[in-house]
Amino acid sequence: MSNAATSSIYKIRLAKLAEVLPTSGIDALALNSGPSLSYLSGLHFHLSERPELLIFVPGKPLAIVLPELEAGKVNSLDFPLQSFPYKEDPNTWVTAFKQAVAFTGIDGCRIGLEPRRFRVLELRLLEVAAPGAKMLSAEDAIASVRMHKDVSEISAMQSAVDIAQDALKATIPLIKIGMTERELAAELTLQLLRHGSDPQLPFSPIVASGPNSANPHATPTDRSLVKGDMLILDWGASFKGYLSDLTRTFAIGEPDPQMVQVAKLVEKANFAARDRARPGIPAGEVDSAARSVIEVAGYGQYFIHRTGHGLGLESHEEPYIRSDNQLPLVNGMTFTIEPGIYLPGRWGVRVEDDFVITSTGGESLSNLPRQLQVF
Amino acid sequence: MSNAATSSIYKIRLAKLAEVLPTSGIDALALNSGPSLSYLSGLHFHLSERPELLIFVPGKPLAIVLPELEAGKVNSLDFPLQSFPYKEDPNTWVTAFKQAVAFTGIDGCRIGLEPRRFRVLELRLLEVAAPGAKMLSAEDAIASVRMHKDVSEISAMQSAVDIAQDALKATIPLIKIGMTERELAAELTLQLLRHGSDPQLPFSPIVASGPNSANPHATPTDRSLVKGDMLILDWGASFKGYLSDLTRTFAIGEPDPQMVQVAKLVEKANFAARDRARPGIPAGEVDSAARSVIEVAGYGQYFIHRTGHGLGLESHEEPYIRSDNQLPLVNGMTFTIEPGIYLPGRWGVRVEDDFVITSTGGESLSNLPRQLQVF
Repeated sequence: MSNAATSSIYKIRLAKLAEVLPTSGIDALALNSGPSLSYLSGLHFHLSERPELLIFVPGKPLAIVLPELEAGKVNSLDFPLQSFPYKEDPNTWVTAFKQAVAFTGIDGCRIGLEPRRFRVLELRLLEVAAPGAKMLSAEDAIASVRMHKDVSEISAMQSAVDIAQDALKATIPLIKIGMTERELAAELTLQLLRHGSDPQLPFSPIVASGPNSANPHATPTDRSLVKGDMLILDWGASFKGYLSDLTRTFAIGEPDPQMVQVAKLVEKANFAARDRARPGIPAGEVDSAARSVIEVAGYGQYFIHRTGHGLGLESHEEPYIRSDNQLPLVNGMTFTIEPGIYLPGRWGVRVEDDFVITSTGGESLSNLPRQLQVF
Repeated sequence: MSNAATSSIYKIRLAKLAEVLPTSGIDALALNSGPSLSYLSGLHFHLSERPELLIFVPGKPLAIVLPELEAGKVNSLDFPLQSFPYKEDPNTWVTAFKQAVAFTGIDGCRIGLEPRRFRVLELRLLEVAAPGAKMLSAEDAIASVRMHKDVSEISAMQSAVDIAQDALKATIPLIKIGMTERELAAELTLQLLRHGSDPQLPFSPIVASGPNSANPHATPTDRSLVKGDMLILDWGASFKGYLSDLTRTFAIGEPDPQMVQVAKLVEKANFAARDRARPGIPAGEVDSAARSVIEVAGYGQYFIHRTGHGLGLESHEEPYIRSDNQLPLVNGMTFTIEPGIYLPGRWGVRVEDDFVITSTGGESLSNLPRQLQVF
């Protein structure tokens, strides 16, 4: 069910994009299933073995190629969209692509794609249907629109953060020596759903204990928590499609002096980055603010990732908080601040907040205690 | 932690693939993050904004391009793998791709990709690194190996089915008039995790009530259950990476005579397909067996999708149970059988089981009651 209010959101977004595309040398946009397609149309499809393609040419109605069994999803829209459904036989796919290309007139055009999302499946079909087209990356153009969150988007993200924080608070009393990383991850997932996350979490929680905490992208294992462990929890919720992504670090039993020192350092780096982030500052300076704290203390080589990433409909999106990113921060940008120190084979510490740039500065959407908590 | 037993699984799989690739005219395989990469190496990465690439040339060590912060994952393997890590700056990606291409010598080769998985991101980098290579689809070659599940894979799938069935049994007593689809989906998710599913579910449960049940791919909404509804639940669990995918249909309050008739018809179609499935039968005949039951009763136009899809590490994989699929079924193939009837704007019925072909016939891994259950 859509209504005038939601319809206007998509019209506004398409109009913004129509302004940006020509300056990127792009005549038309071709998107497959994913966040950008949802952002521009309100439609949601799972990326599956079947191709889907939304075509946007500024000033023209949207066109979509989709499986017949998904056709019901486009019935109740109140903006113009022409659909080109195909049947189960994959041989019918190319016909639907050709029909959509003919309807939109994009053969011979410069077509913008999202390389991080667009698959070879849809690419080859589009190349056959529009042999005269030139394919370019539209990632920057789309990001330049999606990066600027409006009030309703930030409100949804605040809810996603609140749900995640409440879920952690409900999980903490359950943490005990002897439980496995997987058991703890399941408990945290339960609490995320109970506290109101959309059923599809942004990612399954990372629970990394002991030496596993030295791996920033660890997957929960059957390892049991033991005294002397560092424990990293990295988790998030989804609310109306908008995401949160937080990390806190805990010590199981009394931490040794180096653990205490490193945890304080990471907390200080997290603060330095939050303190630096404001409109007009290049994204890279937020990274430098965190990194210099860690480098000065002699741990620079153990901070092996960027300070953060944009957050919104995707758990990783623009703006990336990376030293070489000169993009000036502006009001409405949302991203993580998550410095970490990882001592290979031993343990790691990370403290991650979700941050929004405001008109006058910036603020953290998350406010759970950042210091090392000891169990 | 790997050991001799798990290592040998990957060696066996790579050896099988090495046999198949030449017959498909493929010299080398290039995979990005996903189930096939995990199947062949035991490594797991999330598909992210960063590229990852596994290169397999029969008879040579595997090569992998990956972000430095993921490099820890390849440390404890006991089969030969050369890694080419890159740093945060995207300008370093192409160098890592070029190093991996040089190491494996695949420039000028026929490189097999998975079009349904491989992204334009990795494609463009690979094209730059191996300008003389020809890219082909390796989907059929990979599927021909992955389709034949061994005993340990089928055992994991049985566990995934058992978890899903137990989760439904625990959820059924909670279903009541007035609860929303989303609330019910959250409860079912809780129960899946509690009963032992891996934290990453194969998909978030579909809960489709009333007119929403006429949409095979509905997403749970805030619609509340009311008397007279049909209610479709489509859910699954994950166990050691292997998936289940089940559907049952319920009536909220006394169903009308057409609902009863259609539900019986779908149950009969489900049985006919299970009865037909055995080694040597083309996959398409399983579809025909279900479809003809529904067509004879005059509902053919409302059975708007194929009868099933392969199931394993992915929720949709080969073999597809589609009328035009001539592939003969063989021992170890696993797939869903899920006929459905959808009356647009009114309601739908679907009954889905997970099925395995054995040496002498076939059996359903799932055994929950298939008849319409009334609340």
